Amino acid sequence: MPQFLEISDSNFETAFQALLGAKREDSPDVDAVVADIIADVRARGDAAVLDLTAKFDRLHLDADGLRFTSVEIEDYCAQVSDEDRAALELAATRIRDYHLRQMPEDAFWTDDAGASLGWRWTPVSAAGLYVPGGIATYPSSVLMNAVPAKVAGVGRLAMVVPTPDGAVNPLVLMAARIAGVDEIYRIGGAQAVAALAYGTETIAPVDKITGPGNAYVAAAKRRVFGKVGIDMIAGPSEILVIADKDNDPDWIALDLLSQAEHDENAQSILITDDAAFGQAVASAIEARLLTLERRAVAGPSWRDYGAIITVKDMAQAVVLSDRIAPEHLEICVADADSLADQITHAGAIFIGAWTPEAIGDYVGGPNHVLPTARSARFSSGLSVMDFLKRTTLAKMTPDALAAIGPAAERLAISESLQAHGLSVRARIDKLNRG
Amino acid sequence: MPQFLEISDSNFETAFQALLGAKREDSPDVDAVVADIIADVRARGDAAVLDLTAKFDRLHLDADGLRFTSVEIEDYCAQVSDEDRAALELAATRIRDYHLRQMPEDAFWTDDAGASLGWRWTPVSAAGLYVPGGIATYPSSVLMNAVPAKVAGVGRLAMVVPTPDGAVNPLVLMAARIAGVDEIYRIGGAQAVAALAYGTETIAPVDKITGPGNAYVAAAKRRVFGKVGIDMIAGPSEILVIADKDNDPDWIALDLLSQAEHDENAQSILITDDAAFGQAVASAIEARLLTLERRAVAGPSWRDYGAIITVKDMAQAVVLSDRIAPEHLEICVADADSLADQITHAGAIFIGAWTPEAIGDYVGGPNHVLPTARSARFSSGLSVMDFLKRTTLAKMTPDALAAIGPAAERLAISESLQAHGLSVRARIDKLNRG
Repeated sequence: MPQFLEISDSNFETAFQALLGAKREDSPDVDAVVADIIADVRARGDAAVLDLTAKFDRLHLDADGLRFTSVEIEDYCAQVSDEDRAALELAATRIRDYHLRQMPEDAFWTDDAGASLGWRWTPVSAAGLYVPGGIATYPSSVLMNAVPAKVAGVGRLAMVVPTPDGAVNPLVLMAARIAGVDEIYRIGGAQAVAALAYGTETIAPVDKITGPGNAYVAAAKRRVFGKVGIDMIAGPSEILVIADKDNDPDWIALDLLSQAEHDENAQSILITDDAAFGQAVASAIEARLLTLERRAVAGPSWRDYGAIITVKDMAQAVVLSDRIAPEHLEICVADADSLADQITHAGAIFIGAWTPEAIGDYVGGPNHVLPTARSARFSSGLSVMDFLKRTTLAKMTPDALAAIGPAAERLAISESLQAHGLSVRARIDKLNRG
Repeated sequence: MPQFLEISDSNFETAFQALLGAKREDSPDVDAVVADIIADVRARGDAAVLDLTAKFDRLHLDADGLRFTSVEIEDYCAQVSDEDRAALELAATRIRDYHLRQMPEDAFWTDDAGASLGWRWTPVSAAGLYVPGGIATYPSSVLMNAVPAKVAGVGRLAMVVPTPDGAVNPLVLMAARIAGVDEIYRIGGAQAVAALAYGTETIAPVDKITGPGNAYVAAAKRRVFGKVGIDMIAGPSEILVIADKDNDPDWIALDLLSQAEHDENAQSILITDDAAFGQAVASAIEARLLTLERRAVAGPSWRDYGAIITVKDMAQAVVLSDRIAPEHLEICVADADSLADQITHAGAIFIGAWTPEAIGDYVGGPNHVLPTARSARFSSGLSVMDFLKRTTLAKMTPDALAAIGPAAERLAISESLQAHGLSVRARIDKLNRG
C-alpha cells in the first residue's frame, strides 16, 4: 500500500519528513572493484578493456572489434522500422530546436574606467556518452545526451554501449546516427568509463563524460571526476503530480505509474485537495497494475515509495512541492500556469492535464536528464551548458590600470601578497615616469 | 632551477608531458578523519561543532558564541582603515557590475506544433561560504564568492571562517558586510562544512557550499556533495604567460612570481619566442627573489614547478597553451587580441602587458575562482550560474499532444515502457472520442 498522508493530521510533519528522507538507492559498495578496473585500464589499455568485456559481457573481441564500423552501424539501422525511425527523428528535431535556444552569448564591453571586460563560450573538444546496455537501453537517452553536445559544438562525441552476449539494440545505434555521434564502442561498465577518461590504444581520451549507468558506472564517474568533467550522478526517478478533482483519475494513475515502471526505487507522489479524488487515483492504479507489463517493477515502487497527500488548498501544495523539490512536477489544476509560477524548486514542470510527463521523456524538447533526490534545490537538468565552458576576458589600458590598479595594490598588501602588488606598481611607476 | 624547454629539442614532447603531468597537490589521506567529523556533527550538532572548534582552533565557545553578533562585526569593521575599505568597495562594485551581466534570461515560447516550451531560472535559497582562516585569509575571496551569490538572488548567505586562538581578520568581516553576507560563524574545517550541509541547532542547513579550503575542507565538500551542491575542488594556482621580447622582463617576472608566492605547489610558466628574453625573465625572477617577502614560498614554487618554454612562433604558443589549459593566461605580445581569439581552453585571459593577472585577483571584475589542473578543458570559473538553477517548462494543448504524442507513444513502446505510452494514448483516445 502506498502511504496516505493528510496535512491536517497531527503526525503529518513526521510522516512527510520520513517520505522526504526515505533512502531509495541501492548503493552496493563497488568502489574497490571499480578502483581496480580503472587502474587496470590505465596500465594495460585495450588489453584490459578486452579482458573485462570478455569477463562481464561474455563477448570476445580483439582491438579492431571494439568500435562499430560504419557498415555495421548501417546494417543495424536497416533493421529499424520506418515508424520508429520517424519517431526518433521527430524527437531529435524537437530536442535540437529546444537546446539551440539555450546557447549563451559571448560578451565584451568597455566600462567607465576604460577596462575592457567580457567572456567567451567554447565547446568541450571531446565528450564521451555512456549508454547502458541490457534491459534499460534507451534510445531516447542517446538523443537527450548527444543532441545537446552536438548543439554546443563538441567536435568529437564518442559513445560506449555494452552489448552483453553480443546483443545490440538497433534503435540505440539509429539514435546515435541521427544525433551525429562520431564513434561508437561496444563496451560498458567501469572499464568503458576508464577508457573514455584515460584513453587506450584504440580509444582517444575525452574531456567530459555524461550519461546514466549502474552502480559501477556511477562509482567510476565519481573516480574519474577531476581528470574529466562528468554530469550529475542520477538517482532513481521521481514524479510529483499536483491534481484537483476535475481530472480523470486514470490519466493521473498512468502518469504516476510511468515513473514507477522505471525502477523499483522510483517514487511517485500525488498531492490533491480532494481526498476522494486521491482514493479514486489509488483505485485506478490498482486496476492498471493488474495488467501493466512492468507491474513487477511498478507495483513494488508504488507500494514501497508511493504516496497520496491531501492538502486543504493548493497554496499548501506549493509549499510541500518546494520541500520535495521534485525531478518531475506535473500540475493538473484549474489555473495550472498560475500555480507553476509559484514553484521555486523543480527539475521540470509539466503544465496542465494535456501534458503527461511521458511527453517530456521523448518528444517535448526539454532534456529528460534532470536532478533527482531533491537536488533541484541547487542543480539543473542537462543542457548545452554542460558541454560548454566560459573563458573570462580582461584588457586594461594604461589609464584603466592607473585608475583601478592602486586599489588592487592596496588589497594585495593587505593580503601579504607583495608580488601581486609589485606587478601593478611596476607598471604604474612606468606610467608616472612617462 | 626552473625548467628550460625548447620546442625544437628532440626530447621536448617528453619534457612537456612531464610538465603537464607533474603532481603538485599535497593530498594527505584525511578522508577517514573527515568522515568521523561529519558523522559527529550530524549526531551531536552544536555540541560536536563546539568540541571540534575547541580542539582544532583552541577556541572555547558556547552555542551563543558561534555566530558573530552585529555589534562584534561593527567593532571589527571599525578597525579597517578608510583606504582599505575604499579598495574593498571599489572591488565589490566592479565584481557586482561584471556578474550582473551574467544573469541569464528566462524564456517561454510556443512552437509550430502548438507546444509551449521554455525555462525559468531561480536562485538557490540558501548558500554557505567557506573562508579559510590563518595565514591564507583573503578578503578578496569573500567578495568573489559572496557578490555573485547575492547578484543571483540567494536569500540567505551564511559564511564560516575559523578564528584560530580567537584571531579575527577585520578585512574579512568588512568584505562580508560589503557583499551582504547574512550570517557569519567563527568555525572552520570539516566541522563547519558539515554544519552548513546538515545544520545544527544554531546553524540552519544550506543548499550549496562554495569557497576554498585545505585538504580537510576539500574532503568534507566531496563527502557532502549530493546532499548539497558544491563549487569546484580547486587545486594549486597556475599562470601561463605568453610574451614576446618587447616586454619589460621585470614585469613578466613579477607576474610569474605573483602566482608562485601563493603556494609552494603553484606553477608559473612562460612561453616566449625569444630565448634571450626567457633568460632575461629568469634573471629578473632571481633578482626579485632576493628580497620578496614571500620568497620562502615563491622560491620553491618557481624552482620546482616553474618553466620557460621557447617556441619558434606564436602559433606554437597557442597550441601549447591549449594543451596546458591554464587557469590564468596572460598574453603580452604585439597583437594580443588576435592571439587571445585563437585560444580555446583557459579559465581567464589577461590581454596585453597592461593587464597584470593581479588586477583580476582583486578589482578587474571577473571572478578569481577559476578552474585549475587543466580542468579549463571542461569547466568554468565561479559565476552567478553557480547560484542559480533552471526549471524547464512544457505545456501541451490537446492539438499539440495529438501532433507529437504518437511519436512519444511509439518510442515508449520501443523502450518497453507501457505506462508511458498509455499516459499519452489515454488522452489522445479521449480527444478522438470528442
